[in-house]
Amino acid sequence: MKAEIITIGDEILIGQIVDTNSAYISSALNKIGVSIYQITSIQDDESHILEAFAAAQSRADLVIVTGGLGPTKDDITKHTICKYFNDELVFNQGVLDHVAHLFKEYIKKPMLDANKTQAMVPSKAEVLVNEFGTAPGMWIENDNTIFVSMPGVPYEMKGLMENEVLPRLQKQFKLPYILHKTFLTYGMGESAIAERIERFENELPAEIKLAYLPSLGRVRLRLSTSGLYKEVVEVAMQEQADKLLPFIDDIFVGYESDGEFEQVVAGLFVEKGKTLAIAESCTGGQMVERFTAHSGASQFLKGSLVTYATQSKVDILGVDPGVIKEHSVVSAQVAEQMAVNARKLYKSDIGISTTGNAGPLKGDSDAEVGTVYIGIATENGVTAHHFMMGNHRERVIGKAVNKALELLKEELLSK
Amino acid sequence: MKAEIITIGDEILIGQIVDTNSAYISSALNKIGVSIYQITSIQDDESHILEAFAAAQSRADLVIVTGGLGPTKDDITKHTICKYFNDELVFNQGVLDHVAHLFKEYIKKPMLDANKTQAMVPSKAEVLVNEFGTAPGMWIENDNTIFVSMPGVPYEMKGLMENEVLPRLQKQFKLPYILHKTFLTYGMGESAIAERIERFENELPAEIKLAYLPSLGRVRLRLSTSGLYKEVVEVAMQEQADKLLPFIDDIFVGYESDGEFEQVVAGLFVEKGKTLAIAESCTGGQMVERFTAHSGASQFLKGSLVTYATQSKVDILGVDPGVIKEHSVVSAQVAEQMAVNARKLYKSDIGISTTGNAGPLKGDSDAEVGTVYIGIATENGVTAHHFMMGNHRERVIGKAVNKALELLKEELLSK
Repeated sequence: MKAEIITIGDEILIGQIVDTNSAYISSALNKIGVSIYQITSIQDDESHILEAFAAAQSRADLVIVTGGLGPTKDDITKHTICKYFNDELVFNQGVLDHVAHLFKEYIKKPMLDANKTQAMVPSKAEVLVNEFGTAPGMWIENDNTIFVSMPGVPYEMKGLMENEVLPRLQKQFKLPYILHKTFLTYGMGESAIAERIERFENELPAEIKLAYLPSLGRVRLRLSTSGLYKEVVEVAMQEQADKLLPFIDDIFVGYESDGEFEQVVAGLFVEKGKTLAIAESCTGGQMVERFTAHSGASQFLKGSLVTYATQSKVDILGVDPGVIKEHSVVSAQVAEQMAVNARKLYKSDIGISTTGNAGPLKGDSDAEVGTVYIGIATENGVTAHHFMMGNHRERVIGKAVNKALELLKEELLSK
Repeated sequence: MKAEIITIGDEILIGQIVDTNSAYISSALNKIGVSIYQITSIQDDESHILEAFAAAQSRADLVIVTGGLGPTKDDITKHTICKYFNDELVFNQGVLDHVAHLFKEYIKKPMLDANKTQAMVPSKAEVLVNEFGTAPGMWIENDNTIFVSMPGVPYEMKGLMENEVLPRLQKQFKLPYILHKTFLTYGMGESAIAERIERFENELPAEIKLAYLPSLGRVRLRLSTSGLYKEVVEVAMQEQADKLLPFIDDIFVGYESDGEFEQVVAGLFVEKGKTLAIAESCTGGQMVERFTAHSGASQFLKGSLVTYATQSKVDILGVDPGVIKEHSVVSAQVAEQMAVNARKLYKSDIGISTTGNAGPLKGDSDAEVGTVYIGIATENGVTAHHFMMGNHRERVIGKAVNKALELLKEELLSK
């Protein structure tokens, strides 16, 4: 089954928002065996929407449309659907009851006339219940193509996908099994990896595709394949994974299906029964945020401090002002004291710290922009590592957090 | 001038990455007067790329292409460009010198054969220097349409846009002035706002467009217009802004051009000469991360603590264990002690705290999922606010941080 996604909204075309819906929808459809052929983002403009609908219908079995279903005048998707399918809006009591229920239970304000118009839906559409909002989803079958229209608000769209769209597709069609296996690697560039795994790549069967995805200090290698029988697909994939791993064992940190890198590290903490305390300066809370973005961080994370100002490193973390004066606040010595004292303060097994200068301004030290020290303290002592991470603020911070995660992983696996 | 963006890469179509490049490119082009008509994401597949090129060329004056320029076998954009323009790859000494320079200065490893192939470029293309990577950008003019091809790595693409693409477009064309003005509002739903500003919306001149962008606890109202003369456009926009503001003065917090909400609040801290300390529990570091994601946070932010575990609230923040026992760790009393003690620890003017349960697990307290207390302490005392923020982890955290920012803003503007 071939699908296309159409996201509607001027805010996408002027770059005011990043379209995260398409990635979610693509991933969710892939998991049930639907391939995405194209994603198209267009404006809230009737003729453009009609043109995009026709183009997508000519290529795809399923067209997923998001956006333009709000109660305000700038939203025109519903009227345009009527025009495209030569249909008209009819009143739907079920939708009105649902909207009234949402207002009574959650919004706790009187329903407005604009909200009542949500109950007008195209007569050819089956209504999909939007648990988290007032705009209903719609399912329309036309000449062997299914059109699904959903609101663009991400959590409303996700609720509709999970509760309505995915189950209906699985019930109505016999779908193949699509499998991606992504290997996270750290510390080597994509060309060097390509050279190293050349023989593996040349011998890869045609039905399995290899892709390289480079980003901050890491390269992800993805193998993709599909087939009608889950077991056959999984065996074929495992065979290739077993061949690939010996080539990359020194740079391989885990599979993406195990989650993001911080989730791999979090899993190791829980598995080893160890706890963590974090003291951040130049990374400004991004390390703790990476961990706490996922549920379950309280199982190993005792807490963290962001000591952004030099004085707070002294007052709260107890860093020796003499050491700061002698070595500067961006130094191995300060990183070590931060890690040791964070570990003591929070009574954790491991303490990790960052101090550096992410730029573009120099801040409390004269250290060159891009300088980062990471300290790691355990019951066996403390060490600090020095890095130069370039002059791009966002990248310096991201790379420093990834480096810290690498050091934590090494420490947890070291015995 | 009408532009389209084509992003190439299987990783987008399977939802492995979110396409952030398109938003950046759209916004950057808009700022110099170029409108984006459509964004299309397609696979690394020759026939699909050729089809998308032709479709875009039939509609647009400028086609920006990203992705598929890496040195590995899965990258086919350059060969496909040759096919589309009936061209061939030729050796370019300048590109090779640049790649050799990058390897010598930054990568500090020997150049590989795969990297040398970066110096092969279509003969019809002008090379655009990629300061941050080995794959050159390319600029090809064909039948009144300009094609620009850039790598998909975001910071490489951004460097090429800023150093090469935008200046060339501005030099080569007389572009109109596009102006968006976005009003950030908090605390009222979009339908209610629409009802309130109905008269304003009805009287809006045809050349100015109004859009509603609802998200976590806030609605952004955007006015968009364009014209040949910057001054005329600005006067027309200001006239409408002056009409709109009286309708929304109680819910308006600032303009998006002043930055994200946290930047508006950061600006107020600097303007008022006040400092901040943060103690986070349920928001897990997201509040401090929002502030430190922008340069200059050290001007007002003394530091932050994430006291995720109950014990660390006692040990580090000095919260009274008796109070925790009596009122539970998720309570107004604990939020107040956290804010007061964070303020004392960091010697700041204002202390702010969060304690709550973002779910999906209940953690260290029995509080219902979605319960959040925010404490705010100043020289004049401390208050705590109670909220129920639903049962969606990501939204609870995001809403709690936005609420905390609102409280900080109110405090800073209160006298």
